[in-house]
Amino acid sequence: MELLKKRILKDGKVIGDSIIKVDSFLNHQLDIELFNEMGREFKARFSNANINKILTVEASGIAIACIAAQYFKVPVVFAKKHDALNIDEDTFHSEVYSFTKQKSYNIRVSKKYIMPEDTILIIDDFLANGKAASGLVDIVQQAGATVAGVGIVIEKGFQKGREVLRQKGIRIESLAIIESIGEDTITFG
Amino acid sequence: MELLKKRILKDGKVIGDSIIKVDSFLNHQLDIELFNEMGREFKARFSNANINKILTVEASGIAIACIAAQYFKVPVVFAKKHDALNIDEDTFHSEVYSFTKQKSYNIRVSKKYIMPEDTILIIDDFLANGKAASGLVDIVQQAGATVAGVGIVIEKGFQKGREVLRQKGIRIESLAIIESIGEDTITFG
Repeated sequence: MELLKKRILKDGKVIGDSIIKVDSFLNHQLDIELFNEMGREFKARFSNANINKILTVEASGIAIACIAAQYFKVPVVFAKKHDALNIDEDTFHSEVYSFTKQKSYNIRVSKKYIMPEDTILIIDDFLANGKAASGLVDIVQQAGATVAGVGIVIEKGFQKGREVLRQKGIRIESLAIIESIGEDTITFG
Repeated sequence: MELLKKRILKDGKVIGDSIIKVDSFLNHQLDIELFNEMGREFKARFSNANINKILTVEASGIAIACIAAQYFKVPVVFAKKHDALNIDEDTFHSEVYSFTKQKSYNIRVSKKYIMPEDTILIIDDFLANGKAASGLVDIVQQAGATVAGVGIVIEKGFQKGREVLRQKGIRIESLAIIESIGEDTITFG
């Protein structure tokens, strides 16, 4: 998606050899106009997939999931990462390892909100090693529902997320795939 | 807002004497059509306030902030609750006490994303004791920016959030105010 790639080149900041900081428009300050273009693009790519629900994980996946959901006219469910009093005890859960935090955590979804007849689009802002997306796929499959695919805003093509999901037979649509990061350079695939 | 009150009566679940569970449409599964009606209502209530940015706090505030932002045509900034590698070190921060978790945590916003010339609408899903909203007001004021008001989806009118914010001179607009919760009954103000 050209508009997104241009924005990444304009406002993205490279940190070290694998982090790209896009907090001015994607995951701290949010450019809602751009999010609408991204939502429209996800709908175009998954237009024939009969999606009836979008699943994401808190926190930064929620924004793009909600804006995209308007184009699909479906509800959003977000998996919870943190303990909360207001979640049911009866949940699907999956353990996710975070490389950035170097620890595992559980993501959870109440069993009331994913049904076997659901066809679900998983949306997240980043795909790196595929741990969070795999956890969401795991939850959908525990529910006996169908994964229509995974929609990603920025994929780090130099990490193994795509391969991990492909081995599970999951369709992946990324709006921008970064092939490599150099000192002050970002190259798209 | 009648549509919201009806939905709370239909799908809200009372737990104990102060918790109302609305996770089927507001903070776990999200009814994006209803969110659009709520966003439109916030715009109607703050139409003349010259708002140029919406501020919320992760996680469940993000969804309504993003949908509402479409009606204001402004970006969203969400305060971070959790440590993350991708946040600047130079932040405004405020300590917030959580009654449900019985501990304090810091909320943080990069100094790049709130400027003295900003007129900011704070949006959150719930107002109870006003701790989170007060923390967000504190952050806006640290930045020397203007708080146009606080927009809340569900206010617990029997807790002291409104009084706390009123003492700071902050305008509050709540789409539904719950005056009391009984066994299986919810009364609006």
